[in-house]
Amino acid sequence: MNYTHSRDLREAIRRGEFSGPTCGLVPGYAQSNLVILPRELAFDFFLFCQRNPKPCPILEVLEPGRYEPALTTPGADIRTDVPLYRIYKNGKLSSEEKNITNYWRDDLVSFLLGCSFTFEAALVRAGIAVRHIGEGKNVPMYITNIPTVPAGSFFGPNVVTMRPIPRNKVVKAVQITSRFPAVHGAPVHIGDPEEIGIRDLSKPDYGDAVEVKPGEVPVFWMCGVTPQAVALRSKPSLMITHSPGYMFVTDMLDEDLAVS
Amino acid sequence: MNYTHSRDLREAIRRGEFSGPTCGLVPGYAQSNLVILPRELAFDFFLFCQRNPKPCPILEVLEPGRYEPALTTPGADIRTDVPLYRIYKNGKLSSEEKNITNYWRDDLVSFLLGCSFTFEAALVRAGIAVRHIGEGKNVPMYITNIPTVPAGSFFGPNVVTMRPIPRNKVVKAVQITSRFPAVHGAPVHIGDPEEIGIRDLSKPDYGDAVEVKPGEVPVFWMCGVTPQAVALRSKPSLMITHSPGYMFVTDMLDEDLAVS
Repeated sequence: MNYTHSRDLREAIRRGEFSGPTCGLVPGYAQSNLVILPRELAFDFFLFCQRNPKPCPILEVLEPGRYEPALTTPGADIRTDVPLYRIYKNGKLSSEEKNITNYWRDDLVSFLLGCSFTFEAALVRAGIAVRHIGEGKNVPMYITNIPTVPAGSFFGPNVVTMRPIPRNKVVKAVQITSRFPAVHGAPVHIGDPEEIGIRDLSKPDYGDAVEVKPGEVPVFWMCGVTPQAVALRSKPSLMITHSPGYMFVTDMLDEDLAVS
Repeated sequence: MNYTHSRDLREAIRRGEFSGPTCGLVPGYAQSNLVILPRELAFDFFLFCQRNPKPCPILEVLEPGRYEPALTTPGADIRTDVPLYRIYKNGKLSSEEKNITNYWRDDLVSFLLGCSFTFEAALVRAGIAVRHIGEGKNVPMYITNIPTVPAGSFFGPNVVTMRPIPRNKVVKAVQITSRFPAVHGAPVHIGDPEEIGIRDLSKPDYGDAVEVKPGEVPVFWMCGVTPQAVALRSKPSLMITHSPGYMFVTDMLDEDLAVS
């Protein structure tokens, strides 16, 4: 089914009618990563995002206990409008859930972080096909050897997404994504997975592997799943997130997040 | 005395040898506003800055108890390196101090926010004289009728700076300052003080009045003194700031804060 407004998709998710990855859906609307933490960890994580704006570009932060992102997506409910959630406890993935209503507490603080799905529509408009969309898969994501800047109790490696780009379109892909600093912006690396600590492109840490064809270069962008890799290392008592690739779709337009 | 490196100025301030406003000093180095709050208010204020990036563009936030801005200005001490501080208690200006060593507590969180002095050097380079520098004064600042976006316990009006610009250079001034989003960026208003709630340009709320000559237009930029106007309204138990115009001079270069 095609959804024309982000609200239609969110409502289908809330009713349990859609439960897949969201890449390629409702083009034009900005998708976002979700990180939810207890209030006592929220300042440290805010600081972590401020120091790591490429993987963690903040779109909206909600006051403790709030679950409606009133500034970017009024009427939405971040407890029910994401297709799949992950519950991390003390640095371990504890479970995946279809909604988190039963987990909700008045001291939980929600962070919406920009997602690279936002610039994919712009790539496609410029004639650069996005492989995982073409293959009907989730985007491949990899834990790198690039450390984040630590903040308070949070530290750990950066996660990246990878898209194979024809060699003669790499410059164009850099230019296009540079216009979207609020959704990870320009690539962090072009060409050599090993240099950023990725041994095998066919085995992503999150999402699905995609084909890299002859004449194509693997291009890597910072990824909003970074907080989940960081959770495994810094072991917050509780962190609730989206499941990688199963995003919260906001009412913001991709173009609202572009610089001129 | 001329200071060639920001460190020289900070050391002179620390030794008590310099105690004036910092506008026009050590051109090329980014100056910053300072806001210090107890930890229990720091998340709300962080959120306030995130929602009000034009008046409150964050350059660095320090962990609770830290007083060395190790990321932007290693070796500096924000308790001693500002020429004049203000202590606000429960929404009232309680005192001005030359240093805040005696006020320091392990739960205090320091925020460095961008300052429009940063783009003044770029204006001057483009042949646009900055009146308050020419007159040897502090920049005029005004409380407006433009509300900030509230966050947690923080709410109140925006504060702006004003620079008179010759009518035929207003476009150029917009273009130049647009390159500096991390230090308030483009003007928020051009031309009509009353429209933003300023009744009398000759009576600024902070800083000094400057002459607006025939053929010049008053141009207004968001100002990092906004948190101080907000403190008067939202009455945090304690907020320590710089005194308006008496800034913390960082080791960041103005050009580090420019977009291409």
